[in-house]
Amino acid sequence: MDLRDVFAANLRRLRNAKGLSQEELAHQASVSRSYMSQLEKGEFYASLNVIGRLADALKVEPADLLKMPSGHKSKSRN
Amino acid sequence: MDLRDVFAANLRRLRNAKGLSQEELAHQASVSRSYMSQLEKGEFYASLNVIGRLADALKVEPADLLKMPSGHKSKSRN
Repeated sequence: MDLRDVFAANLRRLRNAKGLSQEELAHQASVSRSYMSQLEKGEFYASLNVIGRLADALKVEPADLLKMPSGHKSKSRN
Repeated sequence: MDLRDVFAANLRRLRNAKGLSQEELAHQASVSRSYMSQLEKGEFYASLNVIGRLADALKVEPADLLKMPSGHKSKSRN
């Protein structure tokens, strides 16, 4: 599973769990709404500063955004 | 603690635990040796594709590279 897809799935799940819209989270994390939508589609390789700001806005640990879905291994280790 | 510093500390710790030199890990993860050294000094915000390649080369989960040192909270949540 590509890390962009892992990140996108975690971002969507955690945002929904907090009851935030893409617009609200984008605003809180100082990213544009369109970039936010593209991140959730797995279109971009976010960088650490964006990952950090999103984790802060979601009040989760940055590592939570990169956690593999249970039962999945990163693509090149199985 | 800035996420670049968290990443740098985890990268150094995991690389040493595997007994790899910066040069060996840089080669395995297809990044330049100088970039590798700057990442370990916390000078750059790595992106997901570099994080993924380094995790693969170290045979760890990508989230392991972003784990906060025990007892630390990300900078803006304490």
